[in-house]
Amino acid sequence: MNFDYFKNRKSIRRFSNREVSDEMLDEIFELASHAPNTGNMQLYSVVVNREGDTRKQLEACHFNQPASTGATVLVTVCADINGFSRWASLSDAKAGFNNLLGFLSSMTDAVILAQQIVTIAEMKGLGTCYLGTVTYNADKISKLLRLPSGVVPVACIALGWPEEGGVESERLLPSFWVHKEHYRDDSDAEIRKAYGVKDEFGPNQTFIKENGKETLAQVFCDVRYPRKMNEEVSAMLESFLKEKGF
Amino acid sequence: MNFDYFKNRKSIRRFSNREVSDEMLDEIFELASHAPNTGNMQLYSVVVNREGDTRKQLEACHFNQPASTGATVLVTVCADINGFSRWASLSDAKAGFNNLLGFLSSMTDAVILAQQIVTIAEMKGLGTCYLGTVTYNADKISKLLRLPSGVVPVACIALGWPEEGGVESERLLPSFWVHKEHYRDDSDAEIRKAYGVKDEFGPNQTFIKENGKETLAQVFCDVRYPRKMNEEVSAMLESFLKEKGF
Repeated sequence: MNFDYFKNRKSIRRFSNREVSDEMLDEIFELASHAPNTGNMQLYSVVVNREGDTRKQLEACHFNQPASTGATVLVTVCADINGFSRWASLSDAKAGFNNLLGFLSSMTDAVILAQQIVTIAEMKGLGTCYLGTVTYNADKISKLLRLPSGVVPVACIALGWPEEGGVESERLLPSFWVHKEHYRDDSDAEIRKAYGVKDEFGPNQTFIKENGKETLAQVFCDVRYPRKMNEEVSAMLESFLKEKGF
Repeated sequence: MNFDYFKNRKSIRRFSNREVSDEMLDEIFELASHAPNTGNMQLYSVVVNREGDTRKQLEACHFNQPASTGATVLVTVCADINGFSRWASLSDAKAGFNNLLGFLSSMTDAVILAQQIVTIAEMKGLGTCYLGTVTYNADKISKLLRLPSGVVPVACIALGWPEEGGVESERLLPSFWVHKEHYRDDSDAEIRKAYGVKDEFGPNQTFIKENGKETLAQVFCDVRYPRKMNEEVSAMLESFLKEKGF
Protein backbone atom coordinates (compact mmCIF):
# COMPACT_ATOMS: atom_id res chain seq x y z
CA MET A 1 0.00 0.00 0.00
CA ASN A 2 1.19 3.44 -0.91
CA PHE A 3 1.09 6.04 1.86
CA ASP A 4 2.09 9.00 -0.32
CA TYR A 5 -1.46 10.35 -0.15
CA PHE A 6 -1.08 11.09 3.58
CA LYS A 7 2.27 12.80 3.07
CA ASN A 8 1.25 14.88 0.09
CA ARG A 9 -2.32 15.87 0.90
CA LYS A 10 -3.07 19.57 0.93
CA SER A 11 -6.21 21.53 1.72
CA ILE A 12 -7.92 22.92 -1.40
CA ARG A 13 -9.57 26.34 -1.49
CA ARG A 14 -10.39 26.68 -5.19
CA PHE A 15 -12.85 24.27 -6.81
CA SER A 16 -13.87 23.55 -10.41
CA ASN A 17 -17.45 23.49 -11.73
CA ARG A 18 -17.42 19.71 -12.10
CA GLU A 19 -20.39 18.12 -10.38
CA VAL A 20 -20.16 16.08 -7.16
CA SER A 21 -23.13 13.72 -7.40
CA ASP A 22 -25.44 12.81 -4.52
CA GLU A 23 -24.44 9.20 -5.16
CA MET A 24 -20.78 10.02 -4.60
CA LEU A 25 -21.54 11.94 -1.42
CA ASP A 26 -23.75 9.12 -0.13
CA GLU A 27 -20.98 6.60 -0.74
CA ILE A 28 -18.47 8.79 1.13
CA PHE A 29 -20.88 9.19 4.05
CA GLU A 30 -21.62 5.46 4.20
CA LEU A 31 -17.92 4.55 4.18
CA ALA A 32 -17.16 7.22 6.79
CA SER A 33 -19.86 5.92 9.13
CA HIS A 34 -17.72 2.84 9.85
CA ALA A 35 -15.27 5.12 11.70
CA PRO A 36 -14.94 4.49 15.44
CA ASN A 37 -17.34 6.39 17.72
CA THR A 38 -18.42 6.52 21.35
CA GLY A 39 -20.06 3.22 22.33
CA ASN A 40 -21.41 2.95 18.77
CA MET A 41 -24.02 5.59 19.64
CA GLN A 42 -22.96 7.69 16.62
CA LEU A 43 -23.59 11.03 18.32
CA TYR A 44 -23.35 13.08 15.13
CA SER A 45 -25.24 14.44 12.15
CA VAL A 46 -24.40 16.22 8.92
CA VAL A 47 -26.12 19.01 6.97
CA VAL A 48 -25.35 19.27 3.26
CA ASN A 49 -25.74 22.62 1.48
CA ARG A 50 -25.33 22.93 -2.29
CA GLU A 51 -26.93 26.11 -3.56
CA GLY A 52 -29.82 28.50 -3.03
CA ASP A 53 -30.74 30.98 -0.36
CA THR A 54 -29.70 28.98 2.72
CA ARG A 55 -26.37 28.24 1.09
CA LYS A 56 -25.79 31.95 0.41
CA GLN A 57 -26.52 32.79 4.05
CA LEU A 58 -24.26 29.95 5.19
CA GLU A 59 -21.43 31.41 3.10
CA ALA A 60 -21.98 34.74 4.86
CA CYS A 61 -21.59 32.92 8.22
CA HIS A 62 -18.19 31.84 6.88
CA PHE A 63 -17.39 35.49 6.06
CA ASN A 64 -17.76 34.69 2.34
CA GLN A 65 -14.23 33.30 2.25
CA PRO A 66 -13.51 31.95 -1.26
CA ALA A 67 -13.35 28.31 -0.06
CA SER A 68 -16.95 28.70 1.17
CA THR A 69 -18.38 30.56 -1.83
CA GLY A 70 -16.52 28.44 -4.37
CA ALA A 71 -17.15 24.98 -2.90
CA THR A 72 -19.55 22.68 -4.74
CA VAL A 73 -20.86 21.38 -1.42
CA LEU A 74 -20.63 22.61 2.17
CA VAL A 75 -20.82 19.77 4.69
CA THR A 76 -21.56 20.93 8.23
CA VAL A 77 -20.75 18.20 10.75
CA CYS A 78 -22.57 18.44 14.10
CA ALA A 79 -22.16 17.02 17.59
CA ASP A 80 -25.65 15.55 18.04
CA ILE A 81 -27.34 14.01 21.09
CA ASN A 82 -30.80 14.80 19.71
CA GLY A 83 -31.33 11.60 17.71
CA PHE A 84 -30.01 9.40 20.52
CA SER A 85 -32.09 11.18 23.17
CA ARG A 86 -35.32 10.95 21.14
CA TRP A 87 -34.69 7.24 20.50
CA ALA A 88 -34.07 6.73 24.23
CA SER A 89 -37.37 8.33 25.24
CA LEU A 90 -39.18 6.21 22.64
CA SER A 91 -37.51 3.15 24.23
CA ASP A 92 -38.52 3.71 27.88
CA ALA A 93 -35.09 5.14 28.70
CA LYS A 94 -33.78 8.59 29.63
CA ALA A 95 -30.59 9.84 27.97
CA GLY A 96 -28.24 11.74 30.30
CA PHE A 97 -25.95 13.49 27.87
CA ASN A 98 -27.06 17.11 28.23
CA ASN A 99 -23.87 18.03 30.07
CA LEU A 100 -20.17 18.63 29.38
CA LEU A 101 -19.37 14.92 29.01
CA GLY A 102 -22.21 14.58 26.49
CA PHE A 103 -20.90 17.53 24.51
CA LEU A 104 -17.29 16.31 24.47
CA SER A 105 -18.33 12.75 23.53
CA SER A 106 -20.54 13.93 20.66
CA MET A 107 -17.92 16.46 19.53
CA THR A 108 -15.32 13.67 19.42
CA ASP A 109 -17.67 11.48 17.36
CA ALA A 110 -18.38 14.39 15.00
CA VAL A 111 -14.73 15.36 14.46
CA ILE A 112 -13.69 11.73 13.86
CA LEU A 113 -16.51 11.45 11.30
CA ALA A 114 -15.48 14.74 9.68
CA GLN A 115 -11.88 13.62 9.29
CA GLN A 116 -12.99 10.28 7.86
CA ILE A 117 -15.14 12.14 5.31
CA VAL A 118 -12.13 14.33 4.41
CA THR A 119 -9.78 11.35 3.99
CA ILE A 120 -12.20 9.34 1.84
CA ALA A 121 -13.16 12.36 -0.28
CA GLU A 122 -9.51 13.27 -0.87
CA MET A 123 -8.62 9.68 -1.72
CA LYS A 124 -11.35 9.84 -4.36
CA GLY A 125 -9.61 12.89 -5.84
CA LEU A 126 -11.88 15.54 -4.35
CA GLY A 127 -10.47 18.63 -2.66
CA THR A 128 -11.50 19.65 0.85
CA CYS A 129 -10.92 22.47 3.30
CA TYR A 130 -12.12 22.78 6.90
CA LEU A 131 -13.72 26.16 7.56
CA GLY A 132 -12.66 27.09 11.10
CA THR A 133 -15.24 29.87 10.93
CA VAL A 134 -17.86 27.26 11.88
CA THR A 135 -16.98 28.00 15.53
CA TYR A 136 -17.08 31.79 15.20
CA ASN A 137 -20.68 31.83 14.03
CA ALA A 138 -21.91 28.57 15.57
CA ASP A 139 -25.01 30.33 16.90
CA LYS A 140 -25.99 31.89 13.54
CA ILE A 141 -25.25 28.66 11.63
CA SER A 142 -27.38 26.74 14.11
CA LYS A 143 -30.38 29.06 13.52
CA LEU A 144 -29.91 29.01 9.77
CA LEU A 145 -29.71 25.20 9.53
CA ARG A 146 -32.57 24.84 12.10
CA LEU A 147 -30.48 22.73 14.47
CA PRO A 148 -32.60 21.62 17.44
CA SER A 149 -31.53 21.39 21.09
CA GLY A 150 -28.61 18.98 21.55
CA VAL A 151 -27.12 19.71 18.12
CA VAL A 152 -24.02 21.91 17.71
CA PRO A 153 -22.01 22.50 14.49
CA VAL A 154 -18.35 21.62 15.16
CA ALA A 155 -16.79 21.26 11.70
CA CYS A 156 -17.57 22.51 8.21
CA ILE A 157 -15.97 20.92 5.17
CA ALA A 158 -15.84 22.79 1.86
CA LEU A 159 -15.77 20.14 -0.85
CA GLY A 160 -15.48 19.90 -4.62
CA TRP A 161 -13.16 18.90 -7.46
CA PRO A 162 -9.89 20.79 -7.10
CA GLU A 163 -9.08 23.71 -9.42
CA GLU A 164 -5.59 24.07 -7.89
CA GLY A 165 -2.88 21.87 -6.45
CA GLY A 166 -3.07 23.34 -2.98
CA VAL A 167 -0.45 25.28 -1.08
CA GLU A 168 2.66 23.68 0.41
CA SER A 169 2.77 24.03 4.18
CA GLU A 170 5.28 23.13 6.87
CA ARG A 171 4.88 20.88 9.90
CA LEU A 172 6.50 20.59 13.31
CA LEU A 173 8.62 17.42 13.58
CA PRO A 174 7.04 14.55 15.54
CA SER A 175 10.23 14.45 17.66
CA PHE A 176 8.88 17.70 19.18
CA TRP A 177 5.20 16.90 19.72
CA VAL A 178 5.61 13.19 20.54
CA HIS A 179 6.59 12.53 24.16
CA LYS A 180 7.72 9.21 25.60
CA GLU A 181 6.37 7.97 28.93
CA HIS A 182 5.92 11.52 30.29
CA TYR A 183 5.48 14.99 28.81
CA ARG A 184 8.96 16.53 28.44
CA ASP A 185 9.65 19.93 29.94
CA ASP A 186 11.49 21.42 26.94
CA SER A 187 13.93 24.27 27.37
CA ASP A 188 13.34 27.61 25.65
CA ALA A 189 16.09 26.70 23.19
CA GLU A 190 14.30 23.46 22.30
CA ILE A 191 11.00 25.28 21.76
CA ARG A 192 12.74 27.85 19.54
CA LYS A 193 14.42 25.09 17.56
CA ALA A 194 11.18 23.13 17.07
CA TYR A 195 9.22 26.18 15.84
CA GLY A 196 12.17 27.20 13.64
CA VAL A 197 10.51 24.99 11.01
CA LYS A 198 7.64 27.48 10.94
CA ASP A 199 9.62 30.66 11.56
CA GLU A 200 11.99 29.95 8.68
CA PHE A 201 9.48 28.60 6.18
CA GLY A 202 9.62 30.89 3.13
CA PRO A 203 5.90 31.67 2.68
CA ASN A 204 5.67 32.46 6.42
CA GLN A 205 8.39 35.08 6.01
CA THR A 206 6.26 36.73 3.32
CA PHE A 207 3.25 36.41 5.62
CA ILE A 208 5.11 38.31 8.38
CA LYS A 209 6.02 41.14 6.01
CA GLU A 210 2.52 41.40 4.52
CA ASN A 211 1.11 41.82 8.01
CA GLY A 212 3.72 44.37 9.05
CA LYS A 213 4.89 42.19 11.94
CA GLU A 214 8.27 41.07 13.23
CA THR A 215 7.58 37.44 14.06
CA LEU A 216 5.22 34.74 12.82
CA ALA A 217 3.80 34.30 16.33
CA GLN A 218 2.79 37.98 16.26
CA VAL A 219 0.79 37.36 13.08
CA PHE A 220 -1.07 34.54 14.86
CA CYS A 221 -1.55 36.35 18.17
CA ASP A 222 -2.16 39.94 17.03
CA VAL A 223 -3.80 39.55 13.61
CA ARG A 224 -5.36 36.13 13.06
CA TYR A 225 -6.37 35.04 16.57
CA PRO A 226 -6.21 38.09 18.87
CA ARG A 227 -7.10 37.45 22.52
CA LYS A 228 -10.01 39.92 22.52
CA MET A 229 -11.71 38.16 19.61
CA ASN A 230 -11.02 34.71 21.12
CA GLU A 231 -12.61 35.83 24.39
CA GLU A 232 -15.67 37.27 22.65
CA VAL A 233 -16.17 34.04 20.68
CA SER A 234 -15.65 32.01 23.87
CA ALA A 235 -18.35 34.00 25.67
CA MET A 236 -20.76 33.44 22.76
CA LEU A 237 -19.94 29.72 22.71
CA GLU A 238 -20.50 29.37 26.43
CA SER A 239 -24.01 30.77 26.27
CA PHE A 240 -24.71 28.99 22.97
CA LEU A 241 -23.75 25.58 24.46
CA LYS A 242 -26.04 26.27 27.44
CA GLU A 243 -28.86 27.28 25.11
CA LYS A 244 -28.35 24.00 23.22
CA GLY A 245 -28.80 22.07 26.48
CA PHE A 246 -25.17 21.20 27.20
CA MET B 1 -8.29 2.66 -5.46
CA ASN B 2 -10.03 0.18 -3.22
CA PHE B 3 -12.23 1.60 -0.46
CA ASP B 4 -12.99 -1.74 1.21
CA TYR B 5 -10.74 -0.83 4.13
CA PHE B 6 -13.13 1.94 5.21
CA LYS B 7 -16.18 -0.30 4.96
CA ASN B 8 -14.63 -3.31 6.73
CA ARG B 9 -12.53 -1.70 9.44
CA LYS B 10 -13.25 -2.81 13.01
CA SER B 11 -11.83 -1.76 16.34
CA ILE B 12 -9.44 -4.33 17.81
CA ARG B 13 -9.31 -5.10 21.53
CA ARG B 14 -6.94 -8.12 21.59
CA PHE B 15 -3.36 -7.73 20.44
CA SER B 16 -0.52 -10.17 19.69
CA ASN B 17 2.99 -10.00 21.18
CA ARG B 18 4.47 -8.90 17.84
CA GLU B 19 6.56 -5.77 18.24
CA VAL B 20 5.56 -2.33 16.93
CA SER B 21 8.88 -0.59 16.33
CA ASP B 22 9.63 3.03 17.18
CA GLU B 23 10.45 3.50 13.48
CA MET B 24 6.96 2.35 12.50
CA LEU B 25 5.33 4.64 15.08
CA ASP B 26 7.48 7.58 13.95
CA GLU B 27 6.45 7.02 10.34
CA ILE B 28 2.76 6.93 11.32
CA PHE B 29 3.11 10.13 13.36
CA GLU B 30 4.96 11.91 10.55
CA LEU B 31 2.34 10.93 7.97
CA ALA B 32 -0.50 11.88 10.33
CA SER B 33 0.98 15.33 10.94
CA HIS B 34 0.00 16.34 7.40
CA ALA B 35 -3.65 16.20 8.47
CA PRO B 36 -5.52 19.52 8.42
CA ASN B 37 -5.39 21.59 11.62
CA THR B 38 -6.35 25.04 12.90
CA GLY B 39 -4.35 27.71 11.05
CA ASN B 40 -1.43 25.23 10.86
CA MET B 41 -0.71 25.92 14.54
CA GLN B 42 -0.83 22.17 15.29
CA LEU B 43 -2.34 22.57 18.74
CA TYR B 44 -1.72 18.99 19.83
CA SER B 45 0.78 16.62 21.40
CA VAL B 46 1.05 12.87 21.94
CA VAL B 47 2.38 10.76 24.82
CA VAL B 48 3.48 7.21 24.01
CA ASN B 49 3.49 4.57 26.76
CA ARG B 50 4.87 1.09 26.15
CA GLU B 51 5.65 -0.65 29.45
CA GLY B 52 6.84 -0.08 33.00
CA ASP B 53 5.38 1.59 36.05
CA THR B 54 3.77 4.61 34.36
CA ARG B 55 2.17 2.33 31.80
CA LYS B 56 0.71 0.13 34.58
CA GLN B 57 -0.77 3.19 36.29
CA LEU B 58 -2.11 4.44 32.96
CA GLU B 59 -3.87 1.11 32.46
CA ALA B 60 -5.48 1.55 35.88
CA CYS B 61 -6.78 4.98 34.73
CA HIS B 62 -8.45 3.04 31.91
CA PHE B 63 -10.00 0.67 34.50
CA ASN B 64 -7.60 -2.09 33.36
CA GLN B 65 -9.87 -2.89 30.43
CA PRO B 66 -8.28 -5.64 28.29
CA ALA B 67 -7.68 -3.32 25.32
CA SER B 68 -5.55 -1.12 27.62
CA THR B 69 -3.61 -3.88 29.39
CA GLY B 70 -3.09 -5.92 26.20
CA ALA B 71 -2.08 -3.12 23.82
CA THR B 72 1.54 -2.97 22.70
CA VAL B 73 1.43 0.83 22.80
CA LEU B 74 -0.94 3.35 24.38
CA VAL B 75 -1.01 6.65 22.47
CA THR B 76 -2.55 9.51 24.46
CA VAL B 77 -3.46 12.40 22.17
CA CYS B 78 -3.73 15.81 23.84
CA ALA B 79 -5.25 19.19 23.05
CA ASP B 80 -2.17 21.37 23.56
CA ILE B 81 -1.77 25.15 23.62
CA ASN B 82 1.39 24.91 25.75
CA GLY B 83 3.92 24.58 22.91
CA PHE B 84 2.27 27.34 20.88
CA SER B 85 2.01 29.68 23.88
CA ARG B 86 5.64 29.18 24.89
CA TRP B 87 6.78 29.80 21.31
CA ALA B 88 4.65 32.97 21.23
CA SER B 89 6.21 34.41 24.39
CA LEU B 90 9.68 33.62 23.00
CA SER B 91 8.66 35.56 19.84
CA ASP B 92 7.48 38.80 21.46
CA ALA B 93 3.85 37.75 21.15
CA LYS B 94 1.11 36.77 23.62
CA ALA B 95 -1.05 33.76 22.83
CA GLY B 96 -4.73 34.20 23.72
CA PHE B 97 -6.00 30.63 23.68
CA ASN B 98 -6.57 29.97 27.38
CA ASN B 99 -10.34 30.08 26.92
CA LEU B 100 -13.18 27.94 25.51
CA LEU B 101 -12.31 28.75 21.88
CA GLY B 102 -8.70 27.72 22.54
CA PHE B 103 -9.82 24.47 24.08
CA LEU B 104 -12.24 23.62 21.25
CA SER B 105 -9.68 24.53 18.57
CA SER B 106 -6.95 22.41 20.15
CA MET B 107 -9.39 19.56 20.83
CA THR B 108 -10.41 19.60 17.15
CA ASP B 109 -6.75 19.49 16.06
CA ALA B 110 -6.07 16.61 18.49
CA VAL B 111 -9.07 14.50 17.44
CA ILE B 112 -8.32 14.99 13.73
CA LEU B 113 -4.72 13.90 14.41
CA ALA B 114 -5.92 10.90 16.45
CA GLN B 115 -8.20 9.73 13.66
CA GLN B 116 -5.43 10.17 11.09
CA ILE B 117 -3.13 8.03 13.29
CA VAL B 118 -5.87 5.38 13.53
CA THR B 119 -6.48 5.30 9.77
CA ILE B 120 -2.79 5.09 8.85
CA ALA B 121 -2.05 2.46 11.54
CA GLU B 122 -5.01 0.34 10.43
CA MET B 123 -4.01 0.64 6.78
CA LYS B 124 -0.61 -0.71 7.80
CA GLY B 125 -2.35 -3.74 9.28
CA LEU B 126 -2.22 -2.67 12.92
CA GLY B 127 -5.27 -2.88 15.17
CA THR B 128 -6.52 0.09 17.16
CA CYS B 129 -9.17 0.93 19.71
CA TYR B 130 -10.10 4.31 21.19
CA LEU B 131 -10.34 4.16 24.98
CA GLY B 132 -13.26 6.46 25.88
CA THR B 133 -12.10 6.19 29.49
CA VAL B 134 -9.53 8.91 28.70
CA THR B 135 -12.28 11.43 29.55
CA TYR B 136 -13.38 9.76 32.77
CA ASN B 137 -9.96 10.03 34.36
CA ALA B 138 -8.57 13.00 32.44
CA ASP B 139 -7.37 14.58 35.71
CA LYS B 140 -5.51 11.46 36.91
CA ILE B 141 -4.02 10.79 33.46
CA SER B 142 -2.84 14.40 33.31
CA LYS B 143 -0.98 14.08 36.65
CA LEU B 144 0.48 10.70 35.71
CA LEU B 145 1.79 11.89 32.32
CA ARG B 146 2.95 15.23 33.85
CA LEU B 147 0.88 17.32 31.44
CA PRO B 148 1.50 21.03 32.05
CA SER B 149 -1.05 23.86 31.97
CA GLY B 150 -2.74 24.13 28.58
CA VAL B 151 -2.52 20.40 27.86
CA VAL B 152 -5.57 18.11 28.15
CA PRO B 153 -5.80 14.42 27.11
CA VAL B 154 -8.75 14.03 24.69
CA ALA B 155 -8.18 10.65 23.02
CA CYS B 156 -6.29 7.47 23.85
CA ILE B 157 -5.52 4.90 21.18
CA ALA B 158 -4.67 1.31 22.15
CA LEU B 159 -2.46 -0.02 19.37
CA GLY B 160 -0.77 -3.28 18.36
CA TRP B 161 -0.87 -6.13 15.89
CA PRO B 162 -4.35 -7.70 15.96
CA GLU B 163 -4.87 -11.07 17.66
CA GLU B 164 -8.54 -11.15 16.54
CA GLY B 165 -10.62 -10.05 13.58
CA GLY B 166 -12.70 -7.59 15.56
CA VAL B 167 -16.40 -7.64 16.26
CA GLU B 168 -19.05 -6.88 13.62
CA SER B 169 -21.09 -3.79 14.53
CA GLU B 170 -24.07 -2.06 13.00
CA ARG B 171 -24.42 1.52 11.79
CA LEU B 172 -27.29 3.99 11.34
CA LEU B 173 -27.97 4.65 7.65
CA PRO B 174 -26.66 7.98 6.30
CA SER B 175 -30.21 8.69 5.04
CA PHE B 176 -31.03 9.24 8.74
CA TRP B 177 -28.08 11.32 9.95
CA VAL B 178 -27.48 13.29 6.71
CA HIS B 179 -29.80 16.28 6.32
CA LYS B 180 -30.21 18.37 3.19
CA GLU B 181 -30.31 22.15 3.36
CA HIS B 182 -31.89 22.15 6.85
CA TYR B 183 -32.06 19.71 9.77
CA ARG B 184 -35.19 17.57 9.33
CA ASP B 185 -37.67 17.32 12.17
CA ASP B 186 -38.21 13.54 12.01
CA SER B 187 -41.41 11.96 13.33
CA ASP B 188 -41.25 9.42 16.18
CA ALA B 189 -41.93 6.68 13.62
CA GLU B 190 -38.91 7.80 11.57
CA ILE B 191 -36.67 7.82 14.66
CA ARG B 192 -37.89 4.32 15.61
CA LYS B 193 -37.28 3.08 12.09
CA ALA B 194 -33.76 4.55 11.90
CA TYR B 195 -32.68 3.05 15.24
CA GLY B 196 -34.33 -0.26 14.29
CA VAL B 197 -30.92 -1.09 12.75
CA LYS B 198 -29.49 -1.05 16.28
CA ASP B 199 -32.53 -2.45 18.14
CA GLU B 200 -32.75 -5.48 15.88
CA PHE B 201 -29.03 -6.20 15.50
CA GLY B 202 -28.48 -9.74 16.86
CA PRO B 203 -25.58 -9.09 19.26
CA ASN B 204 -27.50 -6.10 20.70
CA GLN B 205 -30.42 -8.41 21.56
CA THR B 206 -27.99 -10.59 23.54
CA PHE B 207 -26.59 -7.43 25.15
CA ILE B 208 -30.09 -6.44 26.34
CA LYS B 209 -30.71 -9.87 27.91
CA GLU B 210 -27.27 -10.01 29.57
CA ASN B 211 -27.98 -6.68 31.22
CA GLY B 212 -31.50 -7.67 32.33
CA LYS B 213 -33.04 -4.78 30.39
CA GLU B 214 -35.96 -4.46 28.00
CA THR B 215 -34.50 -2.12 25.38
CA LEU B 216 -31.06 -1.33 23.99
CA ALA B 217 -31.47 2.34 24.92
CA GLN B 218 -31.94 1.25 28.57
CA VAL B 219 -28.58 -0.53 28.45
CA PHE B 220 -26.97 2.71 27.25
CA CYS B 221 -28.85 5.06 29.60
CA ASP B 222 -29.08 2.93 32.80
CA VAL B 223 -25.98 0.72 32.66
CA ARG B 224 -23.26 2.10 30.40
CA TYR B 225 -23.76 5.90 30.56
CA PRO B 226 -26.09 6.65 33.51
CA ARG B 227 -26.94 10.31 34.06
CA LYS B 228 -25.49 10.40 37.58
CA MET B 229 -22.08 9.19 36.38
CA ASN B 230 -22.14 11.55 33.36
CA GLU B 231 -22.87 14.48 35.68
CA GLU B 232 -20.08 13.55 38.09
CA VAL B 233 -17.59 13.27 35.21
CA SER B 234 -18.83 16.59 33.79
CA ALA B 235 -18.26 18.32 37.13
CA MET B 236 -14.72 16.91 37.31
CA LEU B 237 -14.03 17.97 33.70
CA GLU B 238 -15.29 21.50 34.33
CA SER B 239 -12.89 22.08 37.23
CA PHE B 240 -10.11 20.17 35.46
CA LEU B 241 -10.37 22.39 32.36
CA LYS B 242 -10.26 25.49 34.57
CA GLU B 243 -7.22 24.12 36.41
CA LYS B 244 -5.55 23.56 33.01
CA GLY B 245 -6.09 27.23 32.17
CA PHE B 246 -9.03 26.90 29.75
